[in-house]
Amino acid sequence: MTGPRLTPLAASLPAAVPFVGPEAQERTLGHPFAARLGANESVFGPSPRAIAAMQAAVAEIWMYGDPEAHDLRHALAAHHGCAPANIMIGEGIDGMLGYLVRLLVEQSDAVVTSDGAYPTFNYHVTGFGGVLHKVPYAGDHEDPAALMARAAEVDAKLVYLANPDNPMGSHHGGAAIAAALDSLPDGTLLVLDEAYIDLAPEGTAAPVSPDDPRVIRMRTFSKGYGMAGARVGYAIGAAPLIDAFNKVRNHFGMNRAALAGALAALEDQDWMAHVRREVTRARDEIARIARDNGLAPLPSATNFVTVDCGGDGALARRVLEGLVARGVFVRMPFVAPQNRCIRISCGTADQLALLAGALPDALRDARAATKS
Amino acid sequence: MTGPRLTPLAASLPAAVPFVGPEAQERTLGHPFAARLGANESVFGPSPRAIAAMQAAVAEIWMYGDPEAHDLRHALAAHHGCAPANIMIGEGIDGMLGYLVRLLVEQSDAVVTSDGAYPTFNYHVTGFGGVLHKVPYAGDHEDPAALMARAAEVDAKLVYLANPDNPMGSHHGGAAIAAALDSLPDGTLLVLDEAYIDLAPEGTAAPVSPDDPRVIRMRTFSKGYGMAGARVGYAIGAAPLIDAFNKVRNHFGMNRAALAGALAALEDQDWMAHVRREVTRARDEIARIARDNGLAPLPSATNFVTVDCGGDGALARRVLEGLVARGVFVRMPFVAPQNRCIRISCGTADQLALLAGALPDALRDARAATKS
Repeated sequence: MTGPRLTPLAASLPAAVPFVGPEAQERTLGHPFAARLGANESVFGPSPRAIAAMQAAVAEIWMYGDPEAHDLRHALAAHHGCAPANIMIGEGIDGMLGYLVRLLVEQSDAVVTSDGAYPTFNYHVTGFGGVLHKVPYAGDHEDPAALMARAAEVDAKLVYLANPDNPMGSHHGGAAIAAALDSLPDGTLLVLDEAYIDLAPEGTAAPVSPDDPRVIRMRTFSKGYGMAGARVGYAIGAAPLIDAFNKVRNHFGMNRAALAGALAALEDQDWMAHVRREVTRARDEIARIARDNGLAPLPSATNFVTVDCGGDGALARRVLEGLVARGVFVRMPFVAPQNRCIRISCGTADQLALLAGALPDALRDARAATKS
Repeated sequence: MTGPRLTPLAASLPAAVPFVGPEAQERTLGHPFAARLGANESVFGPSPRAIAAMQAAVAEIWMYGDPEAHDLRHALAAHHGCAPANIMIGEGIDGMLGYLVRLLVEQSDAVVTSDGAYPTFNYHVTGFGGVLHKVPYAGDHEDPAALMARAAEVDAKLVYLANPDNPMGSHHGGAAIAAALDSLPDGTLLVLDEAYIDLAPEGTAAPVSPDDPRVIRMRTFSKGYGMAGARVGYAIGAAPLIDAFNKVRNHFGMNRAALAGALAALEDQDWMAHVRREVTRARDEIARIARDNGLAPLPSATNFVTVDCGGDGALARRVLEGLVARGVFVRMPFVAPQNRCIRISCGTADQLALLAGALPDALRDARAATKS
């Protein structure tokens, strides 16, 4: 018997998981993490108004969500000073990236990103048969000039740039991103992932018109807005490209309560200001803990701090494993030289006290294992 | 300037919406529907335990959901007497159908369905470049023998069969479905959409082993479980095919509260029994209202009743429009001869009273317009 016949492309794909969830690690460990500081979630949570809106909407969960997400789309347009036709809402940036890649990339199409940048984007490109071309980071920054040059060289359909960057936490000023567009090849679309923009310094958002057909920007309610588990992301871009999502998206894919929560979260910018203060405080504390242990925290424009462990990837991996074994969930970059670091999400004072307690022992063990 | 370069396939697709949402109609009408009976949602709602679980989980929405949906997957496996490896959870059946089609269908691949069956399945097939071959209904039933015969004829990769059927509400006994598998061509996968199975007579679920590689079954928390707005669907199938979803799915696509709600809903089978009683009562009442107006209700194994308006598609369309104008949201089949009917979801006694009040006038106007 033949069985189901996967497409040649699907058959060739690994059953890849871009990230193993902390829950899977907890099941392996046999107990929950004491501090969940690995997925850049916002432990400070969403606005209480967003929580209230979601709890109220749960009572109406027997109804499908509005497939046009009309109210949230219009509110986002007002927030960004653009037209609703410039906004498309989807199942997190992950979901939006999947739809975007599907629209533009078929087998053998060239796509450019940085070596060590967001793996879920790569997952989608590979998943649709695209060919990834990677340029190195420049120090701990993504390198816009190198990205644009490579895009021209390989005639890329997409070039991916995260600003601020994950996993390094670095950023470019928005003006530099806008200037880089001068070198964007004709026919290449810049995917500007601004997941962490709400936590970045003033001026980090690129001054690019929503109608500029060369750029699509990705935003999310998962980071600053603290609603990672709700799955609400959106794209800002020129109307023809935004409308193209309607060709392929899961029109009824959005959770009804999540839509209501995102709307309430957007309307509570005081809460976002509160989150920014908490994130700043936590970044400073993580940096202090790192320095107290002789490690070098990198500057961060995000809700996490990437910490240079002062060795190679193997050392950083051991430090990470030591923290995980002590109940502190963190992650690390996947490739060299960024993988000399671990990546620690902003936490509460209590959680960071657990980090401060665990790090010296994790470091000591990691260094001992490295010497032996 | 060239602008973003869509793939030839994407460029060829219409910006299609399989269903216009009731919210869009309400915005056009300028007021909400008095009775929302068009989308086969369950107005009887989810289990109060599911609502409580979702409301509690909203407080933890800052965390991503478990990408493996471990707890729900294991609970579903226990419920169905299979292994967790036989279960894949996703963003509603719509989302699961999208992933499945992506795995199996590339340009020019043949897919078989019934003419007038679920349009969202067709949307996905077209969206991945597949070629749809449609067989007529046999009366008001999907025709397993004709589906299998056509699948053999065109060497289909997929054949779609909904049991019970939407939009007609009809069903086959599970044994008949299992028997039809004898005629399934080698290399064709049967997609058995059992969205409404919880509301169907005992014996409707096909006695097919979860490990049978010829079949994948689709189930949902949107219908009987009353959680349409949560977006939780799942597939039951042989482990290799189930695992293949990991190649393409949005691993972090599930709403965390929805996962918690589905788990609580599954554990409250008393509520499902209550819903079944309410659905039976409502089906009887819709049938009574139809007959009182000289119309013929079709037998239903679902949470809706399809009502033959006794004329052609134009008459039924006018009846539908008359109901919509009177605040009663209903839908109708898309193609002839099924489109002689309107489709009315089960409602509360109050909502069905509104239907009873509106239908005579809607019918009178429709018949008058048809004569003129």
